[in-house]
Amino acid sequence: MTRVGFVGLGNMGGPMAANLVSGGCEVKVFDLLPELINGVAGASGCASAAEAAQDVDVFVSMLPAGRHVRGLYVGDGDNPGLLSIMSPDTLIIDCSTIDPDSARAVAEAAAAQGIAMIDAPVSGGTAGAQNGTLTFIVGGEPAAFERAQAVLNIMGGNIFHAGGAGAGQVAKICNNMMLAILMTGTAEALSLGVDNGLDPAVLSEIMKVSSGGNWALNVYNPYPGVMPDVPSSRGYEGGFLVDLMRKDLGLALQTAQSTESAIPMGSLAQNLYEVHRQVNDAGRLDFSSIQWLFKPELKG
Amino acid sequence: MTRVGFVGLGNMGGPMAANLVSGGCEVKVFDLLPELINGVAGASGCASAAEAAQDVDVFVSMLPAGRHVRGLYVGDGDNPGLLSIMSPDTLIIDCSTIDPDSARAVAEAAAAQGIAMIDAPVSGGTAGAQNGTLTFIVGGEPAAFERAQAVLNIMGGNIFHAGGAGAGQVAKICNNMMLAILMTGTAEALSLGVDNGLDPAVLSEIMKVSSGGNWALNVYNPYPGVMPDVPSSRGYEGGFLVDLMRKDLGLALQTAQSTESAIPMGSLAQNLYEVHRQVNDAGRLDFSSIQWLFKPELKG
Amino acid sequence: MTRVGFVGLGNMGGPMAANLVSGGCEVKVFDLLPELINGVAGASGCASAAEAAQDVDVFVSMLPAGRHVRGLYVGDGDNPGLLSIMSPDTLIIDCSTIDPDSARAVAEAAAAQGIAMIDAPVSGGTAGAQNGTLTFIVGGEPAAFERAQAVLNIMGGNIFHAGGAGAGQVAKICNNMMLAILMTGTAEALSLGVDNGLDPAVLSEIMKVSSGGNWALNVYNPYPGVMPDVPSSRGYEGGFLVDLMRKDLGLALQTAQSTESAIPMGSLAQNLYEVHRQVNDAGRLDFSSIQWLFKPELKG
Amino acid sequence: MTRVGFVGLGNMGGPMAANLVSGGCEVKVFDLLPELINGVAGASGCASAAEAAQDVDVFVSMLPAGRHVRGLYVGDGDNPGLLSIMSPDTLIIDCSTIDPDSARAVAEAAAAQGIAMIDAPVSGGTAGAQNGTLTFIVGGEPAAFERAQAVLNIMGGNIFHAGGAGAGQVAKICNNMMLAILMTGTAEALSLGVDNGLDPAVLSEIMKVSSGGNWALNVYNPYPGVMPDVPSSRGYEGGFLVDLMRKDLGLALQTAQSTESAIPMGSLAQNLYEVHRQVNDAGRLDFSSIQWLFKPELKG
Repeated sequence: MTRVGFVGLGNMGGPMAANLVSGGCEVKVFDLLPELINGVAGASGCASAAEAAQDVDVFVSMLPAGRHVRGLYVGDGDNPGLLSIMSPDTLIIDCSTIDPDSARAVAEAAAAQGIAMIDAPVSGGTAGAQNGTLTFIVGGEPAAFERAQAVLNIMGGNIFHAGGAGAGQVAKICNNMMLAILMTGTAEALSLGVDNGLDPAVLSEIMKVSSGGNWALNVYNPYPGVMPDVPSSRGYEGGFLVDLMRKDLGLALQTAQSTESAIPMGSLAQNLYEVHRQVNDAGRLDFSSIQWLFKPELKG
Repeated sequence: MTRVGFVGLGNMGGPMAANLVSGGCEVKVFDLLPELINGVAGASGCASAAEAAQDVDVFVSMLPAGRHVRGLYVGDGDNPGLLSIMSPDTLIIDCSTIDPDSARAVAEAAAAQGIAMIDAPVSGGTAGAQNGTLTFIVGGEPAAFERAQAVLNIMGGNIFHAGGAGAGQVAKICNNMMLAILMTGTAEALSLGVDNGLDPAVLSEIMKVSSGGNWALNVYNPYPGVMPDVPSSRGYEGGFLVDLMRKDLGLALQTAQSTESAIPMGSLAQNLYEVHRQVNDAGRLDFSSIQWLFKPELKG
Repeated sequence: MTRVGFVGLGNMGGPMAANLVSGGCEVKVFDLLPELINGVAGASGCASAAEAAQDVDVFVSMLPAGRHVRGLYVGDGDNPGLLSIMSPDTLIIDCSTIDPDSARAVAEAAAAQGIAMIDAPVSGGTAGAQNGTLTFIVGGEPAAFERAQAVLNIMGGNIFHAGGAGAGQVAKICNNMMLAILMTGTAEALSLGVDNGLDPAVLSEIMKVSSGGNWALNVYNPYPGVMPDVPSSRGYEGGFLVDLMRKDLGLALQTAQSTESAIPMGSLAQNLYEVHRQVNDAGRLDFSSIQWLFKPELKG
Repeated sequence: MTRVGFVGLGNMGGPMAANLVSGGCEVKVFDLLPELINGVAGASGCASAAEAAQDVDVFVSMLPAGRHVRGLYVGDGDNPGLLSIMSPDTLIIDCSTIDPDSARAVAEAAAAQGIAMIDAPVSGGTAGAQNGTLTFIVGGEPAAFERAQAVLNIMGGNIFHAGGAGAGQVAKICNNMMLAILMTGTAEALSLGVDNGLDPAVLSEIMKVSSGGNWALNVYNPYPGVMPDVPSSRGYEGGFLVDLMRKDLGLALQTAQSTESAIPMGSLAQNLYEVHRQVNDAGRLDFSSIQWLFKPELKG
């Protein structure tokens, strides 16, 4: 029976830990908010992250940002960090979406202690976390990637190996920047068509099977009424929030800065999302609501 | 036996007319360049567009720009235009890619003469023209759309009905603007990944099956060496030229202007293609060569 | 006594014609709206543009777009155009802001009739038209430029000679595209400062005398309360309307298209103005209201 | 006689320290590169930053980035940081251009020790450093701002007070982002004019006194041959390097991220500079060389 420690029990981490319990693991959990600890039925609550990291085969973290991950493992100020107390036999799986530099720095610090670590950011949202259908994009050594399979398979479906330490973060960041470009571009192309008299559903059908086809258009159409069961057809509720897309675009900008890469389309999408959030108070809406920026009359 | 008149016998029009001959039509052809007239084996060469438009069931035109199409049908200066001499029984199929305003204006002028007309811009390039596998996106009345099926089917495969007069142009313009956004965004996302240590092939595989999936990435990868048999793997030769993409993006800007639509992503892509053409002398390269703007070292 | 014909008596043309009367010219006026003809006290109303163009030393036009200017002088359809009836001794001054291609085409047609013509688009707004303080940017032959001085000096202050036919339009278009970039950039820089705790007036004072100094910041500050007597301090009323800036940006895009020039910053400003107009219903506000796009809370 | 400690003796810091010696201060200097220490004639070389910070009235630092400033004052790892050893009577002047968050954090840490600190980033380049004509934009308490006057006046001319701690950084960042927008926009406007037949010098003269006037156009014209004695007229040598502008634009992006501000024009300028650096290998050229991106034929 695999013993798993899990830290970070929010909207994503909570259901992921619960799935590990259901999947037959012996799970110890911790979060800074005590009520979240009790929320994972069947898991053993711990009084600290250090306690959750003791005597486990796999240790999973799901935290908001790079500074939290660095703090947890490497420590800061008087906090020594978990690496100093973990067993070298433990495999660390960090599922947080963070900047690649932090991911690489922590993986190097872990390696210096003889501890294997992978970065495994997820996509699939809270629904994927609950249903155990998350996608993991993994960075790390092949051996560590192999060791992680069993646990990752309990929490999700698709598992990709993107490369060495930090590569999971890079791949996710590139993908989500691409997604922002797809969504913004699709919204503006559909608006242009509608402004010129086209039916958005007809235009979508044509582009889907032509060279304009893309994920946002094909399975997540941002124009209300074109596709059932997507956020655009229920007032942009739920789905992948503008604020989460903005976080990922922020990571893309930060990553591009560190390698001095030009990302003009991604930067423009990021700024349009920022404007959208502000003028439409849209942070808590699905990210396909960027359609409003091009068709304010849809706002109703 | 369908009698077809055909005007405009360039890289696209020539093979299209030849396919009509092969497909069993009786074809009369004209071009301002006499040598192109002789290039269509099995067709009757004409001394003027007016001659080619006499006694035909269907009249097809394939011209560079809106002013040529207006000049051909409506006339300009001392040239009266074909509408004044064509039989009302003739169906006009304009396969040119032009601005929707011109397409609508000519279709209205035709309707005023009792002549049915559709705009049917194509995609699929010279290879599609030669192989008879073009895609047609049609604007016009349903009845005219039906009448055009037989002839269009000889020249191509997919045939879409986008809406009324001009809608074929609008849909093609929206699609190709989307394509420019996809290609530019894909090139920049792949560069960002490579700059951060990822293998472009691995990153492409991951994004293809994730939410970053899109036509440019999936079937026309711009990064050299990732995909065989695409222009990026043969020095960006052939394919869909930067200059042709620039023409279509120009139509997108013109169309957006006429309806006062915001197209920030499309406009940025258009400007990046303009810069790319200039700094890389890339007008005659495939449009996926935009990759060079983000990875100049690939230029070699 | 200089005899002047004047066509186009709107918000700009009316006061300009009135100033010519006050300045001692003998003025004949025409407009398609009869009530505007009567609005110019001291001028002789005419029944047609042709009548206003007879027996005058100078003929001035102030029209909305290139097609009107071409129609007036070169004619269209059954309308022969004024060039066919004007005396070669008449100097034509077209004060309309139009596309350079139209300006050049009409000037060439005039030259073919032996008639001298200059394009002389203005800046300075309705206040400048009323006060006779307009700026003229002139394209045309040096001799024609000299002949125009006396009349232009009655209507305005600064008179620039930008080059040959059409150069006045090009220079105005470049200037106003630059102005849109200045205003949008200034609005976003001030917002960034305010978001980070700075007083917009203090930041403006620093940038004005530093390398960020520019016309929009220095004399037309878009942030409310920083500068008295500018539109930002009276709810963005009056001034230079968003819709007029959008017209000029449209000409910039059209001009850039015709010469295949890259204008990424101008294009982005144009699209941001389009978004601003739509989401803030801002077409009739002063163009410095673009500040709202970056600080929606200022909208109140 | 004012006693000054000075750390960071590079291209900027070295001449600044030398001017303090010339200006009558008693100066102690330190740099990680020993040869730079000896380069400041008349100053006392120190073996450590801590030694330079002992028994001084004012302590000046001129370092590359926020992490160096935090490391110097607050410490990192085993390095305790100067704040723990400095006298509360010492005034700290940090002349580095860094992110506002770091500036504020260090100022707060200093205040906690009872030590007054201002951020005072400079503009004016190496020439300004040598000639004592730098501009300082200061953030900090009014009292500290007053105490710093004497020393700042030795090193520079204009001294601005932008606000509280970090405000100097914010103001400089906003100004330099604006400058990047001015330069990029001016380069593209001039190219548009030239592409349409205008003389860049004539167009510049017109825009300078019109609403397109701005610092880049007026005193630092990017088009070769328009203005003598600026980098554009000597092959873009010297001046303010593309790499330095890129650093400042990076700080602008980082600052905008931290306050969730939209800076679409600044972001586009940043990306265009990134593309320019790459395709034109332009990092070590003056930042007005962005003109090449719009007029590659000028590259020669």
